[in-house]
Amino acid sequence: MASSELTSARSARVTSARKLAKRAFRARDRRFLAEGPQAVREALVARAAGDERAVTELFVTREAWDRYPELVASAEDTGVDVHLASGEIVAGLSQTVTPQGMVAVCGFLDVPLADVLAEPGALVVVLAHVRDPGNAGTVIRAADAAGASAVILTDASVDPYNAKCVRASAGSLWHLPIAVAAPVAPTLGALREAGLRVFAADGAGERDLDQADDAGLLAGPAAWVFGNEAWGLPPETVALCDEALRVPIHGRAESLNLATAAAVCLYASARAQRR
Amino acid sequence: MASSELTSARSARVTSARKLAKRAFRARDRRFLAEGPQAVREALVARAAGDERAVTELFVTREAWDRYPELVASAEDTGVDVHLASGEIVAGLSQTVTPQGMVAVCGFLDVPLADVLAEPGALVVVLAHVRDPGNAGTVIRAADAAGASAVILTDASVDPYNAKCVRASAGSLWHLPIAVAAPVAPTLGALREAGLRVFAADGAGERDLDQADDAGLLAGPAAWVFGNEAWGLPPETVALCDEALRVPIHGRAESLNLATAAAVCLYASARAQRR
Repeated sequence: MASSELTSARSARVTSARKLAKRAFRARDRRFLAEGPQAVREALVARAAGDERAVTELFVTREAWDRYPELVASAEDTGVDVHLASGEIVAGLSQTVTPQGMVAVCGFLDVPLADVLAEPGALVVVLAHVRDPGNAGTVIRAADAAGASAVILTDASVDPYNAKCVRASAGSLWHLPIAVAAPVAPTLGALREAGLRVFAADGAGERDLDQADDAGLLAGPAAWVFGNEAWGLPPETVALCDEALRVPIHGRAESLNLATAAAVCLYASARAQRR
Repeated sequence: MASSELTSARSARVTSARKLAKRAFRARDRRFLAEGPQAVREALVARAAGDERAVTELFVTREAWDRYPELVASAEDTGVDVHLASGEIVAGLSQTVTPQGMVAVCGFLDVPLADVLAEPGALVVVLAHVRDPGNAGTVIRAADAAGASAVILTDASVDPYNAKCVRASAGSLWHLPIAVAAPVAPTLGALREAGLRVFAADGAGERDLDQADDAGLLAGPAAWVFGNEAWGLPPETVALCDEALRVPIHGRAESLNLATAAAVCLYASARAQRR
């Protein structure tokens, strides 16, 4: 039993947790804030599975405590420091407009890039210079849903532990291996050497997804490289891939947004690989 | 030539335009604000094609004027009231964090529901009780990209002229017929009578997309019904559809978000219809 009641927003525990809203402090501590019952549940599952760093502290309002007693019990059972805290304190740790009354201090989840490259699995997602945390989180969620084996964020990509990314991933951050700060050229080279076909998702690609599928290109292990939401993939990155493919545009839209395009590409691969 | 220079944020034209940030005023005037060069370009195309109401006023900063002279020229050529305005004035009309220096007063685009139901085409999207404007706009963009023939928003859905929806649609609002305030049951009934197979996108659907495709269900004309981002489709709406289909979840994610799920479903239909 490790629960205590916090009443001051200036308590050392609160100020220490609040610092994790900043990337520099997250990087120093290799810890981040996860908010809401869905994320807390995933972190607790990881802790129950033996990862002591997965979640170390939990700040909960009385209301959320009463609403999710099983989460609080699971936290207490596994030795998490549980703090009953005022709505104001929890809101101060939250980065949403409507806080859900529950914020956890979690340990970083990313695995060494070398581990991913040694055993990449059949469907890898590479986010190259993606900068918007909501987009990155939504792609991670779509990658998880499509059964991707790993997600790699290149250097100069957004921090996956940014609160918006954590929220948009809807728990998927805890579901599949994630590697960060990957240098583009060596990473794509290693994926190709591991036998994956590396596709650049590129609106200017010569073939579209359906044509690639008809040609049998999507049936084998693949890595998909998605670029920045505003300017896509630079030509030098496309050149490092086996082929650039585009989502077919049947109407008058110029393009799809990053996350919807990624979902369509990943599901095309998932379907072809399972056929 | 209809350009003038505005210097006061309290000028009648500015205050009148600013009211369009509110749904009630938009509904009264059947006009809305579209911001940024992409939306302005689409509205000008519609005006050049003969729709005088498509865009009636344009507020532009000096910087945006110099950056997009072809848009200003096109506006002036087609009789739009062009106002050179300070950055402060344009920012006051903008609802983005980083305004793009260009806001247009546009006419509503929606067409009568009866027109859509009389000739629905082969791929209709129904948004049932979707409440988040960003999600609605992203689905409209994905619908356009997938070649949808129309988008129908049911009553109690978000206003498609909300600034966030306009922005997320990335110009697609102007690309395909949109009907609003549709009553759910008569609309789905009319779509079925018109020969479309009506699919509920539902995580609890018995068959998944791939199974439906393998069974040949996706080859014909279809309407896809997407529900609220938080709680999906109510059972009484699912009951009005021919079949509930789910996106297969190959990993550990609970679900996809609304827009990515919609993109995957619509592209599955688009592919099957073109095979």
